[in-house]
Amino acid sequence: MRALEELVSLLTRLPGIGRKSALRMTYYLLKADHGFTDALAERIGSLQGLISFCSICGSYTEEDPCPVCSGLERDRRTICVVEQPQDVLTIEASMEYKGLYHVLGGLLSPLDGIGPDKLRIASLIQRVRKSRDTQAEGPEPVPVEEIVLATNPTVEGDTTALYIKKVLEKDGVRVTRLATGMPVGGDLEYADRLTLARSFRGRTIL
Amino acid sequence: MRALEELVSLLTRLPGIGRKSALRMTYYLLKADHGFTDALAERIGSLQGLISFCSICGSYTEEDPCPVCSGLERDRRTICVVEQPQDVLTIEASMEYKGLYHVLGGLLSPLDGIGPDKLRIASLIQRVRKSRDTQAEGPEPVPVEEIVLATNPTVEGDTTALYIKKVLEKDGVRVTRLATGMPVGGDLEYADRLTLARSFRGRTIL
Repeated sequence: MRALEELVSLLTRLPGIGRKSALRMTYYLLKADHGFTDALAERIGSLQGLISFCSICGSYTEEDPCPVCSGLERDRRTICVVEQPQDVLTIEASMEYKGLYHVLGGLLSPLDGIGPDKLRIASLIQRVRKSRDTQAEGPEPVPVEEIVLATNPTVEGDTTALYIKKVLEKDGVRVTRLATGMPVGGDLEYADRLTLARSFRGRTIL
Repeated sequence: MRALEELVSLLTRLPGIGRKSALRMTYYLLKADHGFTDALAERIGSLQGLISFCSICGSYTEEDPCPVCSGLERDRRTICVVEQPQDVLTIEASMEYKGLYHVLGGLLSPLDGIGPDKLRIASLIQRVRKSRDTQAEGPEPVPVEEIVLATNPTVEGDTTALYIKKVLEKDGVRVTRLATGMPVGGDLEYADRLTLARSFRGRTIL
């Protein structure tokens, strides 16, 4: 059946969905109530129109600026730097961090031709400097005191973090990096060599 | 974000999709090209309207009767009895079977109040008898000679198979059941007791 096959092949383009999962989903959709299938179709079709990027931090948002950037309860002295917009949602879900964000939109990768100019690094520097500019007009901004680099602990993530640290250090901002080590609930047996090495180097006094 | 959360919670209603998978799919949809998201939304919304049930065998089809029931190349002497419409697609994908189908629409389950009248058993009996009625009018039908019971090897599947066997045996039709045993590529170590027991009982001469 063409209608069925076409849906299956579209679904397999989604991440983590193989042919078997796509078939199961399709069979489910065939039997599901109309309210559900209509709602799902409508939401998928309208998603991109409803969600755009915050003009300040670059994360996903329905209104601009995003609720974090315009949130009065957020700690404006700290900016957490992440690679992708969804990283903001992941960190927000952990409810651990109360500061602001800045999305780079990628990581430095000279081999792929991605230099600092391709990322939202200039706007990060501008945000930091503007906040610390005592001559600035308008309502007195809160000066940014700390940049938390939350790029992934990969070669590109580390390189990007180091680059940003070098640039912003001169401005007298404290630049920190998320801890790397064993995941909570992890098992030494399954930890890779590099993670283990980093865990040793980053060991803390109990 | 409401638009995002709503899509995630709709996606988690799909079989095998947890919150993490739904989030990954949503992030992918956020970045995917419009052509893909529009096509996916359209297909999900239109699926149920395009696909209905074959009035003869009860399987999913875009035209009635379905291509199998109206297929000139199919072996009309054999009817394979399955529980659900999607079982027909699964068996067709194996390309092993060339006969006709009959979908029961469920399995006998007295505890849940599902008796033979709730399933498409009467229409199966009618199909078989009509095909074997030498007095029948119209183009001479091919008499059904074998019923292959392909309900799942579960308590309900076995019960339903036995019931149909009892009813149709009187008509002189050969009633067979799919073999139960070790799956190809399986491992004795991981086979459960019942599967192993059935494999022994159903052993064949090499």
